[in-house]
Amino acid sequence: MDRQTLINTIRAKQSFLCVGLDPDPARIPAHLGSGTEAILAFNRAIIEATSDLAVAYKPNVAFYEALGPEGWNVLSETMKAIPEGCLRIADAKRGDIGNTATRYAQAAFEAWGADAVTVAPYMGRDSVEPFLAFEDKWTILLAATSNPGAEDFEFHGVDHGAPLWRRVLEVSQQYKGAERLMYVVGATRPEWLSEVREVVPDRFLLVPGVGAQGGTLSAVCQAGWSAPLAGGLLVNVGRSLLYASSGEDFAEAARKEALRIQNAMAEELMTSR
Amino acid sequence: MDRQTLINTIRAKQSFLCVGLDPDPARIPAHLGSGTEAILAFNRAIIEATSDLAVAYKPNVAFYEALGPEGWNVLSETMKAIPEGCLRIADAKRGDIGNTATRYAQAAFEAWGADAVTVAPYMGRDSVEPFLAFEDKWTILLAATSNPGAEDFEFHGVDHGAPLWRRVLEVSQQYKGAERLMYVVGATRPEWLSEVREVVPDRFLLVPGVGAQGGTLSAVCQAGWSAPLAGGLLVNVGRSLLYASSGEDFAEAARKEALRIQNAMAEELMTSR
Repeated sequence: MDRQTLINTIRAKQSFLCVGLDPDPARIPAHLGSGTEAILAFNRAIIEATSDLAVAYKPNVAFYEALGPEGWNVLSETMKAIPEGCLRIADAKRGDIGNTATRYAQAAFEAWGADAVTVAPYMGRDSVEPFLAFEDKWTILLAATSNPGAEDFEFHGVDHGAPLWRRVLEVSQQYKGAERLMYVVGATRPEWLSEVREVVPDRFLLVPGVGAQGGTLSAVCQAGWSAPLAGGLLVNVGRSLLYASSGEDFAEAARKEALRIQNAMAEELMTSR
Repeated sequence: MDRQTLINTIRAKQSFLCVGLDPDPARIPAHLGSGTEAILAFNRAIIEATSDLAVAYKPNVAFYEALGPEGWNVLSETMKAIPEGCLRIADAKRGDIGNTATRYAQAAFEAWGADAVTVAPYMGRDSVEPFLAFEDKWTILLAATSNPGAEDFEFHGVDHGAPLWRRVLEVSQQYKGAERLMYVVGATRPEWLSEVREVVPDRFLLVPGVGAQGGTLSAVCQAGWSAPLAGGLLVNVGRSLLYASSGEDFAEAARKEALRIQNAMAEELMTSR
């Protein structure tokens, strides 16, 4: 999905909601049964109930890997269940070099059918460019995450006193294919988002941490938009939507939560112009 | 496999050879046929031909993921083909937080049957400790890699002017379960190995880059040993062994190359005492 299509979709749906598909086997509603079949049925129902309100879905690959060999089919089938107009993000946080990176990219973009994949920057250029070589795909690089451990390295000053995550933004802008980069920036400290926008005014940002982790949508939008949508946002919501109900009405409850978020997003889109 | 067992194995075999299992479908000898069956047959033959000379095997997970759903079975079956006395390393370079990291650890240690997994440090403590929580398993953290892109971030100075990789060593030593850490350190610049040994005299290091990438075994050993094997080395050799011959004698040729390396390692072990 190219940039203009993504922007058009956001305008048409009045939404920049990304639904995180992290299906925890212990939290799948009991009436769906158990095992990988139940997980796939759960994902399909969530997607069907929310696909007019979301612009992206983000299966977290770890949750599928942990299911063993069958997990791979659940992941591919989940990707297939996401309608054409929505961005399919494989949240894989891969990071390796050269022909190994190319193989991770092939797995994500070809074997799983993703439009985008999250990638870790630690090993540098030759661990990122093999993903960027896929011309119609997106690479979403980890920058400033909102977990406590981010203090260990991401927020430590490098050469000029700027934090490592800022160097990641700056250096990666020089990579071949950088126009196909997005970045992961956590929602919990909106002041980072403003600083991110100084460095990459035109890139899309994938923002987790709204809701459950304490970030608010309006603070994220105030700090993270660059008008007119050139540097857009994709705000990820996971558990609060997936597990809005543990009963037979889980899909309805998920839709209700998605609608609540989409309404708030429509407001933000209105005031951002 | 615990530390003492690993040290005993190194002494008994007079080897610290790790065989990297990165099977490239395009380089599998023609007589084995094609597809995932051929890859598994190739891996099994390589393992059988070298297992008295190697102390570890390291399947590179990307090569299996890129095969699609069947790749996962090839990975598990390859792990099963590695004899009990050898360390099974899943080279996965995973890095995500909290319960996601736990799921990656479950995939590696339980679904694939690995004894050790490589992990990326970018997200910090809560992306590493979930792996360290598995008490009889090893977590091998990326520190100073030898690819050109390592200059982008790993080799940049952080707070006190030391490079990021040094901070990774120092900070990770404070993590809960740090006694189950090893580190990846490239072979191409032995002076890094000496500096690594200043910070972590007692940890095992997994060292790729000997041979194909230009590092020499004697330089690596001179800089990287800490006697008496307390901080040991595992030196990875991949392509030069796997593809020593493209004919029907590929396993014999791989054994010959493994034997050549093991002989050189035995020399190094002798002189290190």
